[in-house]
Amino acid sequence: MKAEIIAVGTELLLGQITNTNAQFLSQELANLGIDVYFQTVVGDNEMRLKEAFNAAQKRADLVICTGGLGPTQDDLTKDVLASLTDSKLLIHQPSMDKIQHLFDQRGMHMVDSNKRQALIIENSHPFFNEVGLAVGIAMKYGDSLFVLLPGPPREMKVMFNQYTKPWLQSLTKAIPLHSKTLKFVGIGESTLEHKLEDLIRGQQDPTIAPYAKEGEVSIRLTTRASSAEEAENKMRATETEIRNRLGKYLFADEDVSLEHAVVRLMAAKNLTLSSAESCTGGMLSDLITSIPGSSDVFQGGIICYSNELKHRLLQVPNEILEGPDAPGAISSETAQLLAEHLLEQTNTDFSLAITGVAGPSSLEDKPVGLVYIGIAQKGQETHVKKVELSGNREIIKLRASKYALHLLWLKLKEN
Amino acid sequence: MKAEIIAVGTELLLGQITNTNAQFLSQELANLGIDVYFQTVVGDNEMRLKEAFNAAQKRADLVICTGGLGPTQDDLTKDVLASLTDSKLLIHQPSMDKIQHLFDQRGMHMVDSNKRQALIIENSHPFFNEVGLAVGIAMKYGDSLFVLLPGPPREMKVMFNQYTKPWLQSLTKAIPLHSKTLKFVGIGESTLEHKLEDLIRGQQDPTIAPYAKEGEVSIRLTTRASSAEEAENKMRATETEIRNRLGKYLFADEDVSLEHAVVRLMAAKNLTLSSAESCTGGMLSDLITSIPGSSDVFQGGIICYSNELKHRLLQVPNEILEGPDAPGAISSETAQLLAEHLLEQTNTDFSLAITGVAGPSSLEDKPVGLVYIGIAQKGQETHVKKVELSGNREIIKLRASKYALHLLWLKLKEN
Repeated sequence: MKAEIIAVGTELLLGQITNTNAQFLSQELANLGIDVYFQTVVGDNEMRLKEAFNAAQKRADLVICTGGLGPTQDDLTKDVLASLTDSKLLIHQPSMDKIQHLFDQRGMHMVDSNKRQALIIENSHPFFNEVGLAVGIAMKYGDSLFVLLPGPPREMKVMFNQYTKPWLQSLTKAIPLHSKTLKFVGIGESTLEHKLEDLIRGQQDPTIAPYAKEGEVSIRLTTRASSAEEAENKMRATETEIRNRLGKYLFADEDVSLEHAVVRLMAAKNLTLSSAESCTGGMLSDLITSIPGSSDVFQGGIICYSNELKHRLLQVPNEILEGPDAPGAISSETAQLLAEHLLEQTNTDFSLAITGVAGPSSLEDKPVGLVYIGIAQKGQETHVKKVELSGNREIIKLRASKYALHLLWLKLKEN
Repeated sequence: MKAEIIAVGTELLLGQITNTNAQFLSQELANLGIDVYFQTVVGDNEMRLKEAFNAAQKRADLVICTGGLGPTQDDLTKDVLASLTDSKLLIHQPSMDKIQHLFDQRGMHMVDSNKRQALIIENSHPFFNEVGLAVGIAMKYGDSLFVLLPGPPREMKVMFNQYTKPWLQSLTKAIPLHSKTLKFVGIGESTLEHKLEDLIRGQQDPTIAPYAKEGEVSIRLTTRASSAEEAENKMRATETEIRNRLGKYLFADEDVSLEHAVVRLMAAKNLTLSSAESCTGGMLSDLITSIPGSSDVFQGGIICYSNELKHRLLQVPNEILEGPDAPGAISSETAQLLAEHLLEQTNTDFSLAITGVAGPSSLEDKPVGLVYIGIAQKGQETHVKKVELSGNREIIKLRASKYALHLLWLKLKEN
C-alpha cells in the first residue's frame, strides 16, 4: 500500500510552525507496514489544495491529510474534497452535540462558523474528536482512500491512535516493519559504507540504511515480520556479518547516543568520571548529565574557561600557560595537567579534560578547531590526543565533546 | 516569485527525522518576499525524485531542494537534475581540495565515493560548503531556478546564509519584508498578549506576532519596505507603544537569546561571572559559552554534581548536606554557600549557583522541578530564589538555567 501525507496550512509555508504531524504519521504508517512515498505541504488555498489532492489521488492508495478542518473561512479541506468527489456536506450529530454542549457550558453564544467543525462529507466514515471540536473523516476519492484529520498535533494524535489506526489496521493486511539500529563511532559514514558495500548493494531483506550524525554513524536494519522474534531471526545473519566487519567501532545495538552508552558502560563497571572543560564550556558535562542515572557515574568537574581559573582551580603553572616560550593553554601539557589535577581533586576513576579553540577567533596564534583532549585514569598513565576539528563555534564544541566521549569509550573497552 | 521547497531523504518519509530544513527555508524566503506555495518530501528514489522535480518545475519559479548531496549511492539529487537537464557532472576543485585535505590531515585513505561530494553540474553556480564537504549548486531547469543544498541542517543553514541568500537577494525584485524582534523575560505569553490586546486586534502594518520559547517571549513586527530606514519609520509608533507598556520586561530589541543579552550587558559594564551548577550539569555554562566573546565575561565555574564535590570543591559543610535534620543539597542554604564560596574562589564580580531536582526521580524527598538559584555579588548580600519548574529532565535543566540568567539580568539592571 502506497501512502502520501498532506499537511494543509499557510503557517507551515511561512515557516511559523514545524510539520511534526508528517513525522508522526510517517512513523505510524511505517509501523503499520504502509510505505509513504511523498509528504506534501500546501497552503489554505482552494486551487492548490485541489492540485495537491489530485496529484496524491493519482499516485497513492492512501492519502492522509492534516489541517484545515477548523471553523474559519481559511479551513477548506472538507469543502475541497466534497467538491472533487461531487458530494454533499452533512452535520455529524455527535460532533455537533459536543460543540453545542461546550458553548452552553461556558454560557457563550455559538457563532455559526463553529458548526463547520461538525460537518462530514456524505458516504464518509467519521472519526470523533476527543480532544478538540473538528470531526475527522475517511472516504474514497477515485481508487484512493482519503483520511482527513485535524491540524493541532494533540487532537490529531489522539484521533489517529484511538480511531484511525485500528480502522487502518482492519483494512490493511500488510505485515508491520521492525527495525534495529547499530551505532558506531570512530569510523566515517563513507568508510563504513565502503566496508559494507557488497551487503548494501545486495540488500533485500532486511534493508540496510546507514545514517550519520555528529561523529556517530548508525545502521538501521529493517524487515517485515509479524513478531519481534521473527524479525530478530530474519535480521540475525546480516547483523552478525556487520558485527564481524565493524565490531570494533560498535558502541550500541539500539538507537542511543554515545554519552548514553558511555554512562551505561561506566555504571555497569562501577566507575566514576569527572570533567575539566575549557573550550567546550560545559557542553560535555551537559551531554553526560542529560542521561537519567548519570549521577551514579558523573561526579562533576571544573569549567576552567579563563587561564586564571586553569591556574587557580586546577593548578596549571603560569609558566606553562603564559609567556613567549610557554606551551600555552591550548597545549598537550595543559590538557594533561588539567586531567591529572582534576582526577586528584575529585578522586574519580577517570577524568576528561578539553582545551582548544572553538572560535570564531584564533587564540595563542593557534587555529580555530585545534583541540587537545586529556584522559586520566587512576593509577595509569595519562593520554592526550590532539585533534583538528572543523565547523563553527557550536559545532566545534559538540565535536570536541563527542571526541572526548569517544576516547573514553575506547579506554573503557580496553580495560 | 513562486517557490517550492523539496526535501530529499527516505529517513524523512520513515519519520526518523523532522523536516526542520523546510521550516527554516520557508521563513527565510518569506523574509526575502518570496512566496512558498508547496513543500514536498520525497525519498532517495530516482523515479520519484524526477517526478517531484518535474512537478515543481512546472509550478514554481524557484525550487530549493535539500539533501541527497552526500557520498553514498543513495545520494541522487545531482545525478537526477543532471539527467533531467541533459548536463554533465564536473569536479568543483575547491570542494575537491577540501575533501582531499581532510583525508590527508587525518592520514586516511579517501574512498572514491567521497569525490561525489565535490561534483557540480555543468553551467551551474556552486555554493561552497564551509561546514561539511558536499558542494551546493544553483542552475536553470526550464524556466525555473533550482538550488540544491546539503541535507544536514547545520551545513544547509551556513551555506544558505553565507552564499545562497545574498545571491537570491540579488536576483529578486520583490519589496522585501523587514522584521524587528522585541524580546521579553519575566512575563508570560498570555499576559503579554492581554496587555497588547487592542494593538494585536487592530494590527495592519506592521503586523504584530507574539511568540514564546522557554521563558523568553518575542514580539515580531513585520512590514514591507524598500530600505531598513523606511521599515524603521513604519514600525516606530507601534514599537514605542509596546515599549511604553512592557518596557520593564524588555531585554533586547533584536532576535538574541537571554544569555546573549546578559553577556553583552556584562561586557559593557566590564563585569565578570562564574557558575556553580548541580542539577543543570553544565547547561548554564554551555549556554553562556555559546556566545562568541563570552570569554570576556565568563571565567568558568564548578559542576558540583555529587554531594562529595559540593563539599570537596566548594566547601559546603557535610552538616548542611547530609543528616536527618540537615537542609540538604537541595536547599536555600546550599545554594547560598555554593554561590558565595565560588565567588571567593574565582574572584569574579558575580556568581550564579543552581541546585535542584531535574528528575526523573525525586531526591532528598524533594519533588522533581524544585530548584534553588543563588546569586552572589562582590560586596553585596547574596540572594537565593526558590522556584518550582515543570517539564522533563531536559526542560527542567533548561528552565533552571534560563531562570538563573533572568535573575542575573534583573540584578544587572538594578546596578
